[in-house]
Amino acid sequence: MLIDVFSILAMVAWAMSGAIAAGRRSMDWVGVFILAAVTALGGGTMRDVLLGHYPLYWIERPWILGVTTGAAIFAMLIAPFIDRLRRAYLLLDAVGLVVVTIVGCDVARDMGQPFAIAVLAGMITGCVGGVVRDILCNQVPLLFSSELYASVSVLTGILYVGGLELGLDASLVAIAACAIGLTVRLLAVRYNWGTPQFTYTKDW
Amino acid sequence: MLIDVFSILAMVAWAMSGAIAAGRRSMDWVGVFILAAVTALGGGTMRDVLLGHYPLYWIERPWILGVTTGAAIFAMLIAPFIDRLRRAYLLLDAVGLVVVTIVGCDVARDMGQPFAIAVLAGMITGCVGGVVRDILCNQVPLLFSSELYASVSVLTGILYVGGLELGLDASLVAIAACAIGLTVRLLAVRYNWGTPQFTYTKDW
Amino acid sequence: MLIDVFSILAMVAWAMSGAIAAGRRSMDWVGVFILAAVTALGGGTMRDVLLGHYPLYWIERPWILGVTTGAAIFAMLIAPFIDRLRRAYLLLDAVGLVVVTIVGCDVARDMGQPFAIAVLAGMITGCVGGVVRDILCNQVPLLFSSELYASVSVLTGILYVGGLELGLDASLVAIAACAIGLTVRLLAVRYNWGTPQFTYTKDW
Repeated sequence: MLIDVFSILAMVAWAMSGAIAAGRRSMDWVGVFILAAVTALGGGTMRDVLLGHYPLYWIERPWILGVTTGAAIFAMLIAPFIDRLRRAYLLLDAVGLVVVTIVGCDVARDMGQPFAIAVLAGMITGCVGGVVRDILCNQVPLLFSSELYASVSVLTGILYVGGLELGLDASLVAIAACAIGLTVRLLAVRYNWGTPQFTYTKDW
Repeated sequence: MLIDVFSILAMVAWAMSGAIAAGRRSMDWVGVFILAAVTALGGGTMRDVLLGHYPLYWIERPWILGVTTGAAIFAMLIAPFIDRLRRAYLLLDAVGLVVVTIVGCDVARDMGQPFAIAVLAGMITGCVGGVVRDILCNQVPLLFSSELYASVSVLTGILYVGGLELGLDASLVAIAACAIGLTVRLLAVRYNWGTPQFTYTKDW
Repeated sequence: MLIDVFSILAMVAWAMSGAIAAGRRSMDWVGVFILAAVTALGGGTMRDVLLGHYPLYWIERPWILGVTTGAAIFAMLIAPFIDRLRRAYLLLDAVGLVVVTIVGCDVARDMGQPFAIAVLAGMITGCVGGVVRDILCNQVPLLFSSELYASVSVLTGILYVGGLELGLDASLVAIAACAIGLTVRLLAVRYNWGTPQFTYTKDW
């Protein structure tokens, strides 16, 4: 239940970030709606396609497309002062990341996938939407150089799936994994943590 | 029948536009053939993958790949004066857009998908090929800032699927939806119509 | 057996090329691992998704993800003098290309696909990983302007599938197709062969 609520909040936050990215490129409304939907739903879609998990969740529940479109319209309406919401966005985005990661792990586990694939499915669900958004905006995906974003997703997934495989209580494990993941992510944003970069400058 | 003919014409037109885009980047022949195929077939492929509608249409009918390759060769042959064909291309492209949208709606409807998904399947079929072409050429997809392209596809899909759900005659509805969509698209190109743009310039 | 060994070697070589590409963009470790995996596994993944061939091979055998991650770490460790390995890389890459092409053809043939689709499946397996790598790095895919890369894959596939359809001995055909493809590729790299380019400069 709570997971459903947070999933939808994450979807809204991500759709809004897609709409803002579209606005940076002066896209028309159609572009804004598409980018919002792709950002919000790209991760889960990629997960389902890779796992062969049909029908896709937003095809089964088309009202989800209404949510992303509504969020895009909302982002355009409040655009003049959306920058003041940056902190709220970062919080919502972080909550969304850990919650959606757990949803993704569950989908893979329900299909009987092993540990590594369940964790990966969680990471794909949490991270791919932003990557597709950045590709459509013609820039190197932020994910590849941002503060522990994918790492937090992987950490949350490992804690969650690991806890379940140890036989711990599902709700408890979910709450603990989310809390730890969320804390790490917020600290990473606050103190600008990141994994080391790898720089290669020679010709190859 | 007529729909088949126009679908193939659209495929040819899109394959040629892919070949020309490849030529702008001085790609080699392989690149030209690939970009032609991806532009012509990307929309239907994305639709089928998202719907889980296997086998893909061009895997079932591999001669389609011969059509796109032939169209690419043709585009290279007539490249010196292909710019004079701009009007013919725009017309063919517009006809293709509405016809292919209807084909896409039908695929989703045959799978028992509801209204919103059928319309979306039509739009994906009509629009995604050009988006993939632009990504492969490393530019922001034109779709996101072009005259009512995706909007025309959505309009055609709504009219068509809506008409069918009202129980109207299928052929009649298809013809009417195509005629209206085509008219709007041609007027949009002629008078440079577009949906409003959303521009966001602040940092986020 | 030998095919398995070379497939894994190809995977390692491609994962390393993905890691190096990530290093050129100063990505963080997560970006490096993702780009390595996508480069090494993107081709087979695209083939399986297009053919509807589930479960994907790396989901069935998750240790493959360990191989790509290990290769990425190895690439970072030896980065200071990896440029001296350019020749070894080109050789490994060429061997991998022809071997992986044959694996891809086999997957399609086992599903009962006809000649053209089997050859195409081979090409997709061999070439798509590099294309996705380049898209994620925000550049026009090298494939579209490099020495006979995709052409060698298509040639190998035609020889292999053609030989099988003529009823020749499978191992013999595989070895012959690989040897010819490899020779052509190495000569192409050595003498800078390419297919002609198509350049189009007018407005359209």
